[in-house]
Amino acid sequence: MATFVYKSDALRGQGWARVFAQRAPQIDFRIWPDIGEAADVHWLAAWEPPADLATRFPALRALFSTGAGVDQFDHRLLPPELPLIRMIEPGITEGMVEYVCHAALDLHRDMPAYRRQQALQQWQPLPVRPAAKRRIGVLGLGELGRAVLQRLALFGFDVAGWSRSAHTVPGIVCHHGPDGLDALLARSDILVCLLPLTAETRGLLDARLLARLPAGASLIHVGRGPQLDADALRRALDAGHLAEAVLDVCDPEPLPAGHPLWAHPRVRITPHIASMTRPETAAHAVLDNLQRLADGQPPLGLVDRGRGY
Amino acid sequence: MATFVYKSDALRGQGWARVFAQRAPQIDFRIWPDIGEAADVHWLAAWEPPADLATRFPALRALFSTGAGVDQFDHRLLPPELPLIRMIEPGITEGMVEYVCHAALDLHRDMPAYRRQQALQQWQPLPVRPAAKRRIGVLGLGELGRAVLQRLALFGFDVAGWSRSAHTVPGIVCHHGPDGLDALLARSDILVCLLPLTAETRGLLDARLLARLPAGASLIHVGRGPQLDADALRRALDAGHLAEAVLDVCDPEPLPAGHPLWAHPRVRITPHIASMTRPETAAHAVLDNLQRLADGQPPLGLVDRGRGY
Repeated sequence: MATFVYKSDALRGQGWARVFAQRAPQIDFRIWPDIGEAADVHWLAAWEPPADLATRFPALRALFSTGAGVDQFDHRLLPPELPLIRMIEPGITEGMVEYVCHAALDLHRDMPAYRRQQALQQWQPLPVRPAAKRRIGVLGLGELGRAVLQRLALFGFDVAGWSRSAHTVPGIVCHHGPDGLDALLARSDILVCLLPLTAETRGLLDARLLARLPAGASLIHVGRGPQLDADALRRALDAGHLAEAVLDVCDPEPLPAGHPLWAHPRVRITPHIASMTRPETAAHAVLDNLQRLADGQPPLGLVDRGRGY
Repeated sequence: MATFVYKSDALRGQGWARVFAQRAPQIDFRIWPDIGEAADVHWLAAWEPPADLATRFPALRALFSTGAGVDQFDHRLLPPELPLIRMIEPGITEGMVEYVCHAALDLHRDMPAYRRQQALQQWQPLPVRPAAKRRIGVLGLGELGRAVLQRLALFGFDVAGWSRSAHTVPGIVCHHGPDGLDALLARSDILVCLLPLTAETRGLLDARLLARLPAGASLIHVGRGPQLDADALRRALDAGHLAEAVLDVCDPEPLPAGHPLWAHPRVRITPHIASMTRPETAAHAVLDNLQRLADGQPPLGLVDRGRGY
């Protein structure tokens, strides 16, 4: 019997088990470390796969990430021909759309300033800007970036996107490449980072990039912690070039108590909760992909091992 | 020449003047107190009209509120046959949709708790609930209530509305009347108040009403300050029956420094900024209504003087 091994939070694994039992009873679904016969393991879904995966599971046909990213995997330890599949499921997308819309509205409507006024017991309306005059730029035009842009556009924000290579999103201005990045940064009152972590994006949000944003711009960082130079961010905030930052990802995570970002008055931090894989919808997405593999179709979210996402 | 008098913030009045000059040059648009000949004044747009309006402007044909509500007017001082018109314009609606979506997402994604954790430098993810399992109830199914419900529904929230008399909103469960209010309250994890202030809604949000919400519910109050019993709210929060409250309206306004609501850890206060009339779009909405009046059509937002909104 072909075995599917789930190696991540065991409680959430129960949600996967229910979906597999109902929809694919012919698959022997198991939660790590109870893996049964290693030779029978055809599929593995993991947040962090075992280092000896290649030798331990000789019959492995595909490796699924339980999260939207695959940067937590050491790609050198994976057999080069093994299909590596990112998680694309509606729960992740919904969560990210909620988080970014909340953060964008929080900045757009001056909520950080109103919270500071409340602490001082001050009743003081601030000038209002219509959404059409608020320019939001999104870095990353994958599944999440596209969904975020389309929801922000419904609020009437002046939105645009950027990706490394050319992409189109219906109704949204999209830039690409190095010149396109300049153009996007120059027009972003709010910059949203939704890029995957790769060698190219590590450290991308540095002093030089932040300086190319308009004065008074704000940052919403929902990519990966190592993409941001936290010291450069603090300097840009303290110099008044940037107004506010909302960070859902940090480096390291958990951000240790005492780290200067925690207490910065213009930084809001959430503990990497923007978007979480939901067990039910994730299990269905994986089963859909098993069907695609069985039919000889490429699975959704197949990672290009060369570019790393 | 027929005169239109604007009596509200003079700076915003300049925005109205530009639209009138362009679109209705035949109208003598004037900003209070520079009203010209009182006998020529056919229309008045005001936040607070003069008390002697009936005798002062014998040729007055219509009175426009510069805001979404007309509760600031002393209706006894107005000639009973004078058309009284609320402001319905896209700027007000957009602002309210932004504010309520922000507040609902803030509560839905536990942002108050994450802000408290940040103050303690704690990195601690909290359990996530999908939007489909978050029930939001909206009191008031006018222009604003309908727009808010439809945007919240796009996020997948389990929404429902309530109004005094039966209304329908496409795709949204609507309750009405006293029994309907019980039903709505019993199913609202987040209650949004968007009711007009009338004799019936004054004090409506009292201890009895709040007790009918499910344990752990939260309140978003964007109606009018005198609808809420602030002491009952504090007791419900302190007893743990309610989780959080977001108040954009208070009684009195401005809320004075030292008022216990300011410092309550589970109350967020903004200074009546959820929704502001925007001069450009408001002037266009009023000119559209002048055309309707000229054509013998009822204007949009005509107040039913009997019910008071």
